[in-house]
Amino acid sequence: MEFKDELKEKIKISEEILKRYLPEETGHQKTIFSAMNYSLLAGGKRIRPILMLETYKMFLKEESAYQADIIEPFVSAMEMIHTYSLVHDDLPAMDDDMYRRGKLTTHAAFGEAMGILAGDALLNFAYETAGQAFTACGEDIALYKRTTKAMNLLSYYAGVYGMVGGQVVDVEESGNPLSLEQLMFIYDLKTGALLKASMTIGAVLAGATDEEVKAIESIAEKVGLAFQIQDDILDVISTTEELGKEINSDEKNGKTTYVTLLGIDKAKEEVKTRSDKAAEELSELKKNDMFIQKLIDFLIHRTY
Amino acid sequence: MEFKDELKEKIKISEEILKRYLPEETGHQKTIFSAMNYSLLAGGKRIRPILMLETYKMFLKEESAYQADIIEPFVSAMEMIHTYSLVHDDLPAMDDDMYRRGKLTTHAAFGEAMGILAGDALLNFAYETAGQAFTACGEDIALYKRTTKAMNLLSYYAGVYGMVGGQVVDVEESGNPLSLEQLMFIYDLKTGALLKASMTIGAVLAGATDEEVKAIESIAEKVGLAFQIQDDILDVISTTEELGKEINSDEKNGKTTYVTLLGIDKAKEEVKTRSDKAAEELSELKKNDMFIQKLIDFLIHRTY
Repeated sequence: MEFKDELKEKIKISEEILKRYLPEETGHQKTIFSAMNYSLLAGGKRIRPILMLETYKMFLKEESAYQADIIEPFVSAMEMIHTYSLVHDDLPAMDDDMYRRGKLTTHAAFGEAMGILAGDALLNFAYETAGQAFTACGEDIALYKRTTKAMNLLSYYAGVYGMVGGQVVDVEESGNPLSLEQLMFIYDLKTGALLKASMTIGAVLAGATDEEVKAIESIAEKVGLAFQIQDDILDVISTTEELGKEINSDEKNGKTTYVTLLGIDKAKEEVKTRSDKAAEELSELKKNDMFIQKLIDFLIHRTY
Repeated sequence: MEFKDELKEKIKISEEILKRYLPEETGHQKTIFSAMNYSLLAGGKRIRPILMLETYKMFLKEESAYQADIIEPFVSAMEMIHTYSLVHDDLPAMDDDMYRRGKLTTHAAFGEAMGILAGDALLNFAYETAGQAFTACGEDIALYKRTTKAMNLLSYYAGVYGMVGGQVVDVEESGNPLSLEQLMFIYDLKTGALLKASMTIGAVLAGATDEEVKAIESIAEKVGLAFQIQDDILDVISTTEELGKEINSDEKNGKTTYVTLLGIDKAKEEVKTRSDKAAEELSELKKNDMFIQKLIDFLIHRTY
């Protein structure tokens, strides 16, 4: 199968999983369920669920060891956390965006108060959903250890030492010139953290060793940074048509990026170095998983 | 010891526990740590931490069974969740409050974007903090079962079927007349849910039986409703001086309360019925815990 078709298929599978964990739109608080489902089903490439599922499968000893009631709550929870962060990012006091992927943002569709509450609800519901895996642990202490470790990875990478930490610095320094160190900090936390969470949780739940989990974290970190630097490059070399948004917007907005700091050639070199290293580390795991390798290539070398 | 002195002592103990779990104010994302700590240390009666700790102690077989590294992360997490809800409630798009307990609200002190992020950070940090209990479970499967059950109670009662669900209906119906059923739904979820979470988590972590946990939930529900109805009564019969805020504000704001729906006599009767029943159920547990009984009396029959 062509990679693009394979990816389309995986997106479909991720969305089917997610749909099974959505709240039912009923009861006095029906509006919040509608707002949650609206934002969760507004599209997207489902990168994080796919990365988690594929890393999980990569580390399973055999296909029959797949436990839907352990991995799938976490797959859904991860997309809920990613989605809540977008809902709150779009709020008037933050990026003030009315549209995302051609649809009204959650606060634009449901009002600002409901936008705040929908984000809160999604973040909390992520933990409620992931927690369903606990009830599938039965009498298996090894499973309890894995799922509680996965839960702790989820909260760590989503929080102040992860994604929220990156958002805070991004918001606070908005409009200020950034040092390379600050920029890398933001990239690593704002984008990298949830990729790390997705891949390490997949590995942990499949029973990967501590060394393997560490290797996966290192790969995810390189993918996250290369992905972000590629974003900076595309803003300069892409066309408006390809990118689906205005190009050169970073320069126009006085935004510090890897390209504005170090130039386009160094940026391209950095993407290559990091993605080569990630590929090397992945092959050293000797799992022969071609899809993850292709997905990483796609994420890093995309042209839009 | 007088009850008031005893309560003061318990508040101090709760705050000492909480302080041990606060983030250090350091690193690029320092501002968010400051905003989190600012809101967590802005005072309050620490009702939820105290209820959780006291319920936990009540169900312990012996005092020496107290496990700080199991109960205290949850005690702190509970106050973080309560605090995040206040921080987001105070936002301009919600209640738009500049002051709380005589201090600037978080968004007033740190800006609106940081107010949103501080709430998000606190909610997530609550799960990160509670998750520390997992690492104290060692090889004890019974402990894993209790802590994972406690985690699921936390997320359930904090979320769309708990506190957030209540807030949603409260916000959405703001300014509209409410039916008694809607009003009870809001009271039970917005106020009752975190009281239920506090008491049931304390019971579960101490190893209470399922029947005992169910009894505790029933007690907490009655306390929550009686507490809210007492709030409605105080708005009418208290003096501005006693209450520390304007009286009769509910009527002036056209707000539906238990008193506006059913009158002051029926409201007083309802408080008495529910609190008598809660006391009866508590004594049926035969734990002879006088402090919890006095705390419940204090919460329900307070005059401010």
